[in-house]
Parts: sequence; C-alpha cells; structure tokens
Amino acid sequence: MSAQKPSIPKGTRDFGPAVVARRNYIFGIIRRTFEKFGYAPLETPTLENLSVLTGKYGDEGDQLLFKVLNSGDFLKDVTADDLQNEDGKATRRVLPKVAEKGLRYDLTVPFARYVVMNRGTLTFPFKRYQIQPVWRADRPQRGRYREFYQCDADVVGTDSLLCEAEIVLMMSEVLNTLGLEDFTIKINHRGVLRNIYQALNSEARETDLFVAIDKLDKIGRDGVTKELLERGFSEAAAGQLFDLLAVEGSFTDKLEKLRAAFGAASVPTDAADTYKGLQELGQVVDFLSSFGFEQFKRLEFDPTLARGLSYYTGCIFEIKINNVNMGSVSGGGRYDNLTGAFGLPGVSGVGFSFGVDRLYDCLEELNLFPENAATTTRCLLTNFDAEGMLSLLPVLRALRAAGVPSEMYPESKKLAQQFKYADAKGIPYVLIQGPEERVAAQFKLKELRTGEEKTLTLDQVLATLA
Amino acid sequence: MSAQKPSIPKGTRDFGPAVVARRNYIFGIIRRTFEKFGYAPLETPTLENLSVLTGKYGDEGDQLLFKVLNSGDFLKDVTADDLQNEDGKATRRVLPKVAEKGLRYDLTVPFARYVVMNRGTLTFPFKRYQIQPVWRADRPQRGRYREFYQCDADVVGTDSLLCEAEIVLMMSEVLNTLGLEDFTIKINHRGVLRNIYQALNSEARETDLFVAIDKLDKIGRDGVTKELLERGFSEAAAGQLFDLLAVEGSFTDKLEKLRAAFGAASVPTDAADTYKGLQELGQVVDFLSSFGFEQFKRLEFDPTLARGLSYYTGCIFEIKINNVNMGSVSGGGRYDNLTGAFGLPGVSGVGFSFGVDRLYDCLEELNLFPENAATTTRCLLTNFDAEGMLSLLPVLRALRAAGVPSEMYPESKKLAQQFKYADAKGIPYVLIQGPEERVAAQFKLKELRTGEEKTLTLDQVLATLA
Repeated sequence: MSAQKPSIPKGTRDFGPAVVARRNYIFGIIRRTFEKFGYAPLETPTLENLSVLTGKYGDEGDQLLFKVLNSGDFLKDVTADDLQNEDGKATRRVLPKVAEKGLRYDLTVPFARYVVMNRGTLTFPFKRYQIQPVWRADRPQRGRYREFYQCDADVVGTDSLLCEAEIVLMMSEVLNTLGLEDFTIKINHRGVLRNIYQALNSEARETDLFVAIDKLDKIGRDGVTKELLERGFSEAAAGQLFDLLAVEGSFTDKLEKLRAAFGAASVPTDAADTYKGLQELGQVVDFLSSFGFEQFKRLEFDPTLARGLSYYTGCIFEIKINNVNMGSVSGGGRYDNLTGAFGLPGVSGVGFSFGVDRLYDCLEELNLFPENAATTTRCLLTNFDAEGMLSLLPVLRALRAAGVPSEMYPESKKLAQQFKYADAKGIPYVLIQGPEERVAAQFKLKELRTGEEKTLTLDQVLATLA
Repeated sequence: MSAQKPSIPKGTRDFGPAVVARRNYIFGIIRRTFEKFGYAPLETPTLENLSVLTGKYGDEGDQLLFKVLNSGDFLKDVTADDLQNEDGKATRRVLPKVAEKGLRYDLTVPFARYVVMNRGTLTFPFKRYQIQPVWRADRPQRGRYREFYQCDADVVGTDSLLCEAEIVLMMSEVLNTLGLEDFTIKINHRGVLRNIYQALNSEARETDLFVAIDKLDKIGRDGVTKELLERGFSEAAAGQLFDLLAVEGSFTDKLEKLRAAFGAASVPTDAADTYKGLQELGQVVDFLSSFGFEQFKRLEFDPTLARGLSYYTGCIFEIKINNVNMGSVSGGGRYDNLTGAFGLPGVSGVGFSFGVDRLYDCLEELNLFPENAATTTRCLLTNFDAEGMLSLLPVLRALRAAGVPSEMYPESKKLAQQFKYADAKGIPYVLIQGPEERVAAQFKLKELRTGEEKTLTLDQVLATLA
C-alpha cells in the first residue's frame, strides 16, 4: 500500500503520557470518592443495540447517535427502491437495514438497560458508578468532542433523601480534593418549579415556563420576559415570576420566603406534599447539618435552576467553578422512571455526573495539577558503556523492587542526549556511575530541577528515591 | 415508545461490580509493572479513520473491522447503480461512500499512527503502554469476544536488547504478582527460524516452512510433515527440521547445539550477523543474568515458536500458563518497520501484550483472586429509625474521613433486609446503634463472615476498620 499521511477523526483526541497521567489523577479522585460512599463500579459495552438507544434522547439525539454498519454483506436487504428519496425518507428506510448497533451515547440508558436485564439478581438499593467514554456525532467545537468521558454515580431503588445529601458531600469532596475551592453547588427541586408555575396562576403552559427559566443565564431577564409574553404569559405573571426568583438570603431563608409566597402553612411537614420540593430541600439540608457539612456557603438554593425538561422529577444539582469562565462541571438529579422504556416501571433513583474534560481545563487554568501527576519514571540510569550497563542492572532492579519507577537509557549514547531524554520525559532524577564511581561502589545522583548532584552509596540512593 | 425487552449485542459483555473490581485488580498490577519499568500511558480514540485501519490487518482483518456509518445523510453519494451486484462488488463500492471511520482493531496500528503524527515532538526511545478495548467483528465463541481489552507495552526507536530482557522481567513480574507461578515464557528469534530454513537447504519457500512450524502445537509432527511435503520440502529436509527443533537442555545448551548444527564458529560474537538470532538470544540471557533474574527455569528457548509471519523480525515471545488449559496469555516481539505504512520508515521497536480475559479466567480457575478484590464498601451502618439515622451520620463521615469506604442503608427497613443487603454486596462489617447503644455512645460491630459481634466506642470502631 502507498504511504499516507495519517490523521484522526475530527472531534477525537490522542492523549499522550502527560495528559493521560493528569486525567488519571482526576479519575482516581472521583473513583475513590465514589467508592468511599459505597458506589460500586459498572462497565457496559461500547456497542449497544440501536433498539436500546433509539428514541431515548429525543429526535436530535437519534441524529447524533453513531451507528455501526452490520458486518458482512450489509447491503443484502437494501433495494434500489429504498434509495428513492422523493419522500426525503431514504436514510430512514435504509438505516434499519444496514445498522443494528450503535455507540454508547451516555451512561444512563445503558445503566437502565443493565438494571432491567439483571433485576432478578441485583440487590436494591443499587449504587453504581460508571466511568467510560461516550460518543456523539455533534459538530465539534472548542471544548466539545465526539468522544469524551462521563463519570456517573447513581443509586436506584430508594427514595431516601440521604442520597441527595450524600451527592452534595461527594461533589464537594471531589472538588476540595482537586483543590477547586471556589465552587458553587446549585440545588433546586422540580416541585419548587411547579409551585412557581402554580403561583403565577396562568393558563399558559408549564413546560414553556421551564424552558424560558432555563435560558435565564443566557438571555437575561428581558429575554425571558419576551419569550414568556410570546408564550401567552401576562406581564403581571412575568413580573411575579421574577419576584419569586429573586428571593435572597441563606438556604433556609429562601425556603421560608418561598413557602410564604406559595402560601404554605409550614415547611417541612409530612402533609406538605403540595410543597414537596421545599420540604425535601429542607430535609437535605437537615441531613447535611447532621453530617457536619461545613461548606453551606458553597451550597446555593437556586430556584432558577431547571436542567432540561422531561427527565428529572425531584432535586436537581449543578456545579459551577466560580473563578474559571466555564459551564457547569457536574450536574444531576432525581428521576422517577429510569427503566420504564424497558418495561420496568417504578424504579426511581438519583444520580449525577462529572465532566472530566471541563474539570481538566479548570485544573490546568488554575495550575492545580500536582507536579508529579504528569510524571511516571522517577529515575533514569545513564548508560555509560557496555560493561557499566551490566553492572548497573542490579541497581535498576533494586530501585524497582523498592517501588521506584526507573529505567536505564537503552544505549551507550552521549550523556547529553541521555539527559535530554530525562528532561523531555520529566524524569526528576538521573543516576550516573562512571568508571571511578564503579570502583568505589558509589553513584552520582543528580536532581534535574535543582541541578544538585550528590555522591551516594546504593542504600543512600534508595533512601533518597523510595 | 412501547416497552421492549432489552439485550446487548452478541460478543459484548456487561461487567458488574464484582467483575470490574477483579478486572481492575489485574489492570492495576499490569499498569504498575509497566510504569515501574518506565513505560508511560497513551490513549488513542476509539474511532479511527478507515484510511488508517484498512489494509493493515490483511484481507480477513479488513472484513473484521467495525465500520461506523457517516452521520447525516449517509446515502447522499450512493446511486442505484452502486447497488447492482452482478460483479459481487456492491458492498466494496458502497462502503467508502457510507463509512469513513471504524473502531480500533488493535493497539499497534493506532500507536504507529500516533508516533508518525507526533514524530516532531516525541523523544525517542519512546516507551508507551496502552490499556484499551479493541473491536473485531469475529464470530463470537467461548473466550472470544467482539469487544475486549488489550494491554500493550512497546518501546520504539532503539535496537537495544535490554528492552527484550526487560520484557521478560515485566512478564514474570506481572505473573508472579498475580500469583500465577506455574508459567513458561517461550522465546525464539526470527533469525533462528531463518537459520533453520537455511540449514534445510531446500528450494521450497521460507514462509511455507514458518506457516507449517507455527501449526506444530495443533497438528503435531505428522501434520507438519504432511504439509511440508505438499509444499515441496523433501522427506530429508523434514527429518532434519525435526532434529533441529528437538534440541534439548538449558537455554544456553540449546543455543550451543543449534550453533553447532548451523555450523557457526561461536555465539555470541559481533561478527555473527549470519547467526544474529542465536547471538541476540544469548545477549538477552546475559542481560537477565546481570539483572539477577531468578526464574530461568521459567524461560524456555523454543525454536518452534513462530507467532505469525510478516510482522516480527527479531525476538518473539509467548507465555503459557501450564496448570490451566488455555492458549497463550501474552505474546510479542521485535519489529523493524512499525510505521512504514504511514510514510515513516526505519522505526524499529519491540513490544508485547497481555490478554486480560485469559488472565482473568486463569485467576478464577486457580482461585487466585484476593478475597477483597471484589469488595468495595467495608462497613454498612444500619438505619434504625429517623432519629438514629441522624445521630449516625457523623460516624459515617468519620469512617469515610479515615478512608474506610462506608455507607448507611438509606431507609429504616427491617434489620434482616439491611443485613441481606450487606451480604449480597459482600460488605464485611455491619455497624449497629440501637437506642441503648446510643445512650451509652457505643456501637455494635458485627463481622459477617465470622458472625462475631463486639460492643465498641467510636475510636475502637475506627481502629478496627481503618
């Protein structure tokens, strides 16, 4: 075959050693936090049947699914008639004949599929986390990729609000451990949004209200007002909306003020099903207080938070890193009907997800990656000559046995080139044994960052590096 | 949409929590070993351009590539004429019009592509490891999947045989750490195979000889002889072949005997390029001796090892676990021309790969997984009632802060059900605080395996579990 200039598909990325190490640093913190809270790992296949994926993400989502061609003679069922496109439906006709599998689009639908397929053997509540890539045939742009990782944690089979409280704890633990201290966890409840709609006492549609509120960040108060008027809400209703959304004060202050505005007698009480949103948010705060949660100033009750439309039914979450200009790095919420599409109704749960690419960009922008996150090898043994090479091999072995990732430059090239290699690879230490040191059973250990060089015995080398 | 019974594509698998934990145990040991030897992680995209993949794996490989349908109107360039299949080439004509991307088929071609695309910035020798899934549209059968992981380590840009010696060290370190002690690392060299061919002094084709030898394991001496005769080798040549292949003794004994049989003056010497295979194997043994390698009895020079045909040019490796009935769990070798197909000639290297599915099956069959490999949560806090729940939350937090993965049962259900949950999830300890213990600021800690129950203070609980 002729030589070709290779490339990778747009929207995909190679991750070289330094980047993988840094990504693994983030994954490791997320994974350990999830496990500390009792979430267990699940992995599902990259390939899912299109019957599982299609129809779960809306029409737009169906367009964005990557479909995999059937193997063998994929054309065997396609006729020339199928190609006739006067009705504009040729692709829709041909697609099911040529492709029955697709690439995972998110981690939620495969999770639901897994729960349904294994419902006879799973123990509920089932707490799983899942860290895997997903694929979307979206138009690539800065920060948006066609292949990217999601880090999800969900618990299904319980309505306990302890889960919501623990999600707040996990979110803040991950961010604190990463060193991202200036964050805001926004929380709201679908019930609060419904109460707001009810308070407006409008004949216009509830979903139109939520769609408009969801855009407040982007189009501002004027934009939202304009949209509401177009959708049949009155000026008065719009004005009342912004009065409700403008509640200020502490978390519980806001709960109280909204309760008063909604006309509820008291919150929380068991009878307050009408005000379930306020009640449940209050319960989450109570759990967090009992936990001794110290970061209430980072937890904001935001009645404008809507997070999409159809999926969530209870609490909803979103995290913003305040000192970086970037969208939310995490979000989630409670849902009532995870598995209904697969014939298993009544499975409720709550979950959330971290976006690793955005976390990565935040850490990079704020210079928060630990120095050693990008390094693997700790010590390079220089290769002086064939004889010296052999005599250093037991030292190389001893370093590795002591848990020190080490390597020997494989050829007896000029020392300058070997140092250049160490430098390029970010190896912090170089060990040298020339003929003189060999006779004395000693080594020169040089720290590249400082340039400091010491003459040491093997034990001293091990003590320094291990 | 209507409810459906979901399934996953044949040849793919879900990995539940216990299996993921065990697989991660294996991945972790492989990863740490690779890193200890100075190999740095690389990750490449799941999607590669078909121009990169096609033609790299032979005709059969091209058939087994999973191809991804172009997004949007994938039919736009397909005509009714293209579908005419009188020439049997319709799929070949249509394929490039409907699919330009495919799924990663192995880790070697993407690695070669990465090296070529980044040759300007990489520092050579470049040592990378890569642990990622690959996809092949093979007929699924026991132990063969359409989606499976490979764990590759390669170093390119050096001819040093130190790399081969370190591959033997890494192989044995991984197996020893996994507890797989009864293994054989088979090693051979393409040069030895060439010398064997030369010694037969036959006009028949060299590749036919290697293809036949490669089948010795499966079809035996009689089968190989039959095939050789069909391919134009004489009875005498076949007889001489088996004399050569039958050399016995220690590693160096075999080297010496073959050297004598080949008529070489001495091995190793620098002038022995004609007997480069024997010379290089000797050098690898010398390096291993200098390393203090203790497991020479596990390293077998096997002149019958051929490992495919076109790819390798130097040493070749393969690992067999002797006390399990299974194919090789690892293999590799040196190649001269990794990147030639992408226009960059002369990049030589050596690498090897572990098959994680086979290692998994070996560990399972030999019962070698550590007990705690499958467990994540260490302690379940029972949920007695609403009040008790709140008072236990600080304890839950203290356990997690001490690094003990812990969870509380989220609802105040019957204790029996909570214990059942712990049991099903493999949680070893259950912590209980009923009203009495609450007053006394004490806890009952029960170890499920033994049934032993102790009454402890918080400090004692932490000391037991941390």
